[in-house]
Amino acid sequence: MPREAYVNGRYVPHAQAAVHIEDRGYQFADGVYEVVTIHRGTLIDEEPHLNRLERSLDELRIAMPMSRPALKLVARELIRRNAVSNGIVYLQVTRGVAPRDHKFPGHARPALVMTTRQMKPHSTKLLEDGAKVIAVPDIRWARCDIKSVSLLPNVLAKQAASEAEAYEAWQVDADGFVTEGSSTNAWIVTGEGTVVTRAVGQEILNGITRISLLKLIESHGYTLEERAFSLEEAKAAKEAFITSSTSFVLAVTQIDDTPVGNGHPGILTGKLRRHYFDFMDRAGDPI
Amino acid sequence: MPREAYVNGRYVPHAQAAVHIEDRGYQFADGVYEVVTIHRGTLIDEEPHLNRLERSLDELRIAMPMSRPALKLVARELIRRNAVSNGIVYLQVTRGVAPRDHKFPGHARPALVMTTRQMKPHSTKLLEDGAKVIAVPDIRWARCDIKSVSLLPNVLAKQAASEAEAYEAWQVDADGFVTEGSSTNAWIVTGEGTVVTRAVGQEILNGITRISLLKLIESHGYTLEERAFSLEEAKAAKEAFITSSTSFVLAVTQIDDTPVGNGHPGILTGKLRRHYFDFMDRAGDPI
Repeated sequence: MPREAYVNGRYVPHAQAAVHIEDRGYQFADGVYEVVTIHRGTLIDEEPHLNRLERSLDELRIAMPMSRPALKLVARELIRRNAVSNGIVYLQVTRGVAPRDHKFPGHARPALVMTTRQMKPHSTKLLEDGAKVIAVPDIRWARCDIKSVSLLPNVLAKQAASEAEAYEAWQVDADGFVTEGSSTNAWIVTGEGTVVTRAVGQEILNGITRISLLKLIESHGYTLEERAFSLEEAKAAKEAFITSSTSFVLAVTQIDDTPVGNGHPGILTGKLRRHYFDFMDRAGDPI
Repeated sequence: MPREAYVNGRYVPHAQAAVHIEDRGYQFADGVYEVVTIHRGTLIDEEPHLNRLERSLDELRIAMPMSRPALKLVARELIRRNAVSNGIVYLQVTRGVAPRDHKFPGHARPALVMTTRQMKPHSTKLLEDGAKVIAVPDIRWARCDIKSVSLLPNVLAKQAASEAEAYEAWQVDADGFVTEGSSTNAWIVTGEGTVVTRAVGQEILNGITRISLLKLIESHGYTLEERAFSLEEAKAAKEAFITSSTSFVLAVTQIDDTPVGNGHPGILTGKLRRHYFDFMDRAGDPI
């Protein structure tokens, strides 16, 4: 069965899925996106993802391309057609097609693209060794709270990580504090066992996995601080990890050339990863 | 005759011109562009535009999609097919199509899209009244010297201008200095008659019209300073203007609520506009 994509009202073979060259997503990065985990056939945190989608669109004054129930139906139909059990739904909404002009067009209809992808579990090696991250300067714009497709700096950061044989790049602001990874949120565990992650603001994206993990940390009674931490503090931390809808909770064992803690995935990190998988196992009803 | 576009090797009717949904321009803003003036059938400053295109691509490590002579041939063929006498060529190069992953793909071929547009001369009213600009905070990323399609902040700035019934938004950095407009370079003329525009760096795009006007200013013996100027200095300036490949040299007569000089297009600005049009009239041979 050929993989299908949903593009502006139609399910089309992936290879033929196309948008107009004057779609403002292509010419201006004038759009937003979401990546939702599919775990055992269930969409994880679908409502929070759609809440964030609406928020991003609101910030850019782009209308929802269809109602929320309709969006959910399309996601389910696409998952069914592509027979995805574990993976992601990717959805992108742009301001639509209009003759090229920076300002908002008068009459464009928001464009919607949706795809799915089956994904393999993380490799045993990655789980046993943990991930390496490198530090890079945060050169992004001032509204990283909007999940826009204006991702060129993130691309450059991830490429730098890849060339350093690292899994992720942690972006560091002008004051020396870690903002977030190029596609993940950044966390550390202090020597006292306190979990630390940056408080939300316009400097970072409020990750949906981040939000769910915060609730799990609270419900399990771990100590938490939402505050900025410096690159130096991170390198001296007992544990470190990242979160995202494809990394879940993934141990970081090396930052640049510095091993984190004893250089192995942290014990608390392992517990949080299991809590998060338990949460996903419990989530929702199968589609 | 239907308007045609050039998309990855083919001339296609504009309405059917499309790119794949996994073109990295659409998902990551991973691409660059140029806008070249067509004046009386001649491409203005084609070589400097192609030099800048190559520089932008080099910075992002994207290969040229075809040789420079081939690019020039495509531009000329498209202008011929669309019978454009005065207007622009828009060309966009992205890293190409690949399964979505932030880091550079191993085997993508750069994608090339080219369009043309016939444009009318500036209205008599705009030339007589001059343009109004508003000031907005510069919230862009740290590499504005790369002419990337990561233009969402520019879109928001231009929209703010439009809603204030202004022609352009001048972006102001954290220190209170004007960087540039959302799609134009910013200039002032001091009380002493010195022309001032910001020196190039990673904070602004090195405009091709800017470069050509700098040469004209020099050859005509006007006094010039390439340095940052504050919003306050601009509001107190004798004259102000903007440059771009569609604005050419256009007088600014109001910044926010403050008239510039006597509120009419400046005398030196008018001279520079005429010098620039003389330059375009002289440029190259007709295609």
